[in-house]
Amino acid sequence: MPFEFRQAVRNGQFRGPTAGYCGDYAQANLAILPSAYANDFLRFCQANPKPCPLLAVGEPGQWHVPALGREVDIRSDVPAFYIYRDGRLAQETDSLADVWQNDFVVFAIGCSFSFEQMLAKEGIPLRHVEEGRNVPMYRTKIANRRAGIFGGELVVSMRPMRGADAIRAVQITSRFPGVHGAPIHIGDPAELGIEDLAKPEFGDAVTIKEGELPVYWACGVTPQTAIMGAKLPLAIAHKPGHMLMTDITNASLAVF
Amino acid sequence: MPFEFRQAVRNGQFRGPTAGYCGDYAQANLAILPSAYANDFLRFCQANPKPCPLLAVGEPGQWHVPALGREVDIRSDVPAFYIYRDGRLAQETDSLADVWQNDFVVFAIGCSFSFEQMLAKEGIPLRHVEEGRNVPMYRTKIANRRAGIFGGELVVSMRPMRGADAIRAVQITSRFPGVHGAPIHIGDPAELGIEDLAKPEFGDAVTIKEGELPVYWACGVTPQTAIMGAKLPLAIAHKPGHMLMTDITNASLAVF
Repeated sequence: MPFEFRQAVRNGQFRGPTAGYCGDYAQANLAILPSAYANDFLRFCQANPKPCPLLAVGEPGQWHVPALGREVDIRSDVPAFYIYRDGRLAQETDSLADVWQNDFVVFAIGCSFSFEQMLAKEGIPLRHVEEGRNVPMYRTKIANRRAGIFGGELVVSMRPMRGADAIRAVQITSRFPGVHGAPIHIGDPAELGIEDLAKPEFGDAVTIKEGELPVYWACGVTPQTAIMGAKLPLAIAHKPGHMLMTDITNASLAVF
Repeated sequence: MPFEFRQAVRNGQFRGPTAGYCGDYAQANLAILPSAYANDFLRFCQANPKPCPLLAVGEPGQWHVPALGREVDIRSDVPAFYIYRDGRLAQETDSLADVWQNDFVVFAIGCSFSFEQMLAKEGIPLRHVEEGRNVPMYRTKIANRRAGIFGGELVVSMRPMRGADAIRAVQITSRFPGVHGAPIHIGDPAELGIEDLAKPEFGDAVTIKEGELPVYWACGVTPQTAIMGAKLPLAIAHKPGHMLMTDITNASLAVF
């Protein structure tokens, strides 16, 4: 259960990637920003809900975010953090106790693990899972809607599927806008400005079989690249794949 | 309005194709069968709901079908009928007054005009409409579920779309299972056993532009081909494109 999982993280018993744990519960991408940048970032998420679906926003200075789970302490309940300074990765840490500031605002953003769980339950094969790789992710030429200092381009994840599975995947993920929702594109990568599906900017390439279509979803890496692009003096995120486990059930995120 | 439209048909003032009239109302494919075959056909429709979504089934011998509209008289309210004998088209007529039998059962099946109206309202271009043609339809290698004497293969209609429009089209048509619902396939025609998209078995070929995907829906021609394949001594259908206008609003067919 998520509470026990977070306790294991807090106690240092668990420091690894969180994929596959507590499958019925939503995991969250995290961004933690000084309040000077938080309003811009909140508007950025509101304006770009497909890559940045907000599950919760903390009160300024608060490391407890009750909307995410019982007794959550953001400083200690994530297996690994990345600390960015001036837009560059400066440090990896497993605790924010020493760097926490009274003006930090926590943003929790939905994660594709939730919809992948739903797809898997419906029997839709996920190639990157079959091949034991990270999902391939690509920078696109699609500009995000700018909000203050945050802009940049949409990052997408790609899952190859047969046509009938792509249709089911659209139906299933449409029910879950809180975890990126429906795909944003099917088919021709050139339409997104992707030159070569075999060369993802993040994650690993996967096999695309004869007769399959690439299906693209807005990706939670988008806000991280927007934060890096804004070159903030200080910003914090989870280490990719090392997510916050929440008490929010995936099922509760269905809008119909 | 549908009532007035049916009156015009009944009075002989309207005998043409019905596409584009009373756009907010569902039009129906018709099959009219002697009761000896009606139970098999009802099971066939139940077992194959994507090509054969039943809007209404008449009581045996009844030409009034109140579920379809006020004062509907099936014998006279359809612009043109095809009469099949021994599985072959034997006669076209604009009235069933002389051929009606006391054991006839009316089947009304949802029509793609309804979902096309919904797609057009959402700004999704329909190539066959743009090009002033009938939608292209293809026999597939996909066997229908057999029920008694009725079997055969699925017939599909095809509409080429850009990826993002295909995603919206899946979302929109998923809400309307009563008019064929979501597509059954996107992409490779070979997966359906279609050899050449430029050579549809019914309707007209349309242009497929660079970067577009063919999107395939189950088609109401499927039950007609099943009826012809069953070689019934007598069966009646509407003339293709010459549908029954119903009082059922398209909006009322949305399941969510």
